[in-house]
Amino acid sequence: MELLDKLNWRYAAKAMNGKAVPEDKIEHILEAARLAPTSSGLQPFEIMVIKNQELKEKIRPVAWNQSVITDCSHLLVFAAWDTYTEDRINYMFNLTNEIRGFKNEGWENYRQMLLGSYPQQDAEENYHHAAKQAYIAFSQAIIAAAFEGVDATPIEGFEAEAVDTILGLREKGLRSAVLLPLGYRKEEEEDWLVNLVKVRKPMADLVTIIN
Amino acid sequence: MELLDKLNWRYAAKAMNGKAVPEDKIEHILEAARLAPTSSGLQPFEIMVIKNQELKEKIRPVAWNQSVITDCSHLLVFAAWDTYTEDRINYMFNLTNEIRGFKNEGWENYRQMLLGSYPQQDAEENYHHAAKQAYIAFSQAIIAAAFEGVDATPIEGFEAEAVDTILGLREKGLRSAVLLPLGYRKEEEEDWLVNLVKVRKPMADLVTIIN
Repeated sequence: MELLDKLNWRYAAKAMNGKAVPEDKIEHILEAARLAPTSSGLQPFEIMVIKNQELKEKIRPVAWNQSVITDCSHLLVFAAWDTYTEDRINYMFNLTNEIRGFKNEGWENYRQMLLGSYPQQDAEENYHHAAKQAYIAFSQAIIAAAFEGVDATPIEGFEAEAVDTILGLREKGLRSAVLLPLGYRKEEEEDWLVNLVKVRKPMADLVTIIN
Repeated sequence: MELLDKLNWRYAAKAMNGKAVPEDKIEHILEAARLAPTSSGLQPFEIMVIKNQELKEKIRPVAWNQSVITDCSHLLVFAAWDTYTEDRINYMFNLTNEIRGFKNEGWENYRQMLLGSYPQQDAEENYHHAAKQAYIAFSQAIIAAAFEGVDATPIEGFEAEAVDTILGLREKGLRSAVLLPLGYRKEEEEDWLVNLVKVRKPMADLVTIIN
């Protein structure tokens, strides 16, 4: 399967060469993220696409000083909703009705059920739930990058609150969940991982078949 | 891009026809999940693959009685580690050394850093972190299913503790995070979603470009 070839090709590049990724490739990667399935279809996150070099330089020190932050072409910040609100839930249900051109009773009942649960729940719990949905899109973006021959480095090692402050995310009700620099690997000794074999648990340690 | 075609083809089938998915397709889907990148490469989750019909019937009532639970071919349960332990961290670092055939000082220092942080953190926080990694694999499995022409229904609507009990997950230090029934859609009126247009936020509401 072509997908498995792409998954074997990709790896978390630890050094990038600063070369720009063409905008059409970026658009395809973002489209893959946009198409990600999410819980109740709420898509509870936004994606900041940082091309601005100054901003990347501000983020690098709060991201373990990783060089890919500044040497990437586009830095994607997946920012999850800080909680679920009535407005946010209604936005997606209204959008669905508008696109489909009709209202469905079951769907409206489901809206009421969500309005009666999420907004009353603990914000931290809601954030974790939203962040998990962001990870689905994040994963789809990583795969799309591989299909485009673009390197992507998943980064969780950063001070989320500092990134939130730099990007003004909290004021928008968002919290940075995970970063994805996009660019091209530097195929030199600077990245000691580049020529190493991919390590994964053997299938027997990952999967249990229950017949 | 072929990936975008597959992402547009897939949808969360609400009714399946009970037809068996060939084992080679299941293997490819699991392989995609196995290849998923995870934080520090820890792969902090396992996947239960339930073919047993009795077990599916036990799970269905604690999963909002959704018919796909019993009408799917294989029910995948992504179960995240309940916390990070020294043993679990050491397992992955030792495996890496074994596969690569050498020890690297930077890598060993990194092991010590993780041993000095994760196991001391709040278990609930660790579980959420592990579950997010499981979602990356979950997302890759969904895409792999689409490449295999197999329907997959992401399911978060279930009582996690009840599923944990049915599968004996807690005793193994695991917690069910998300379900993925695999099978074939029932192309009849039973699934009112099947012919509806896919709804996603417009790109402008999802993405902010910072030049």
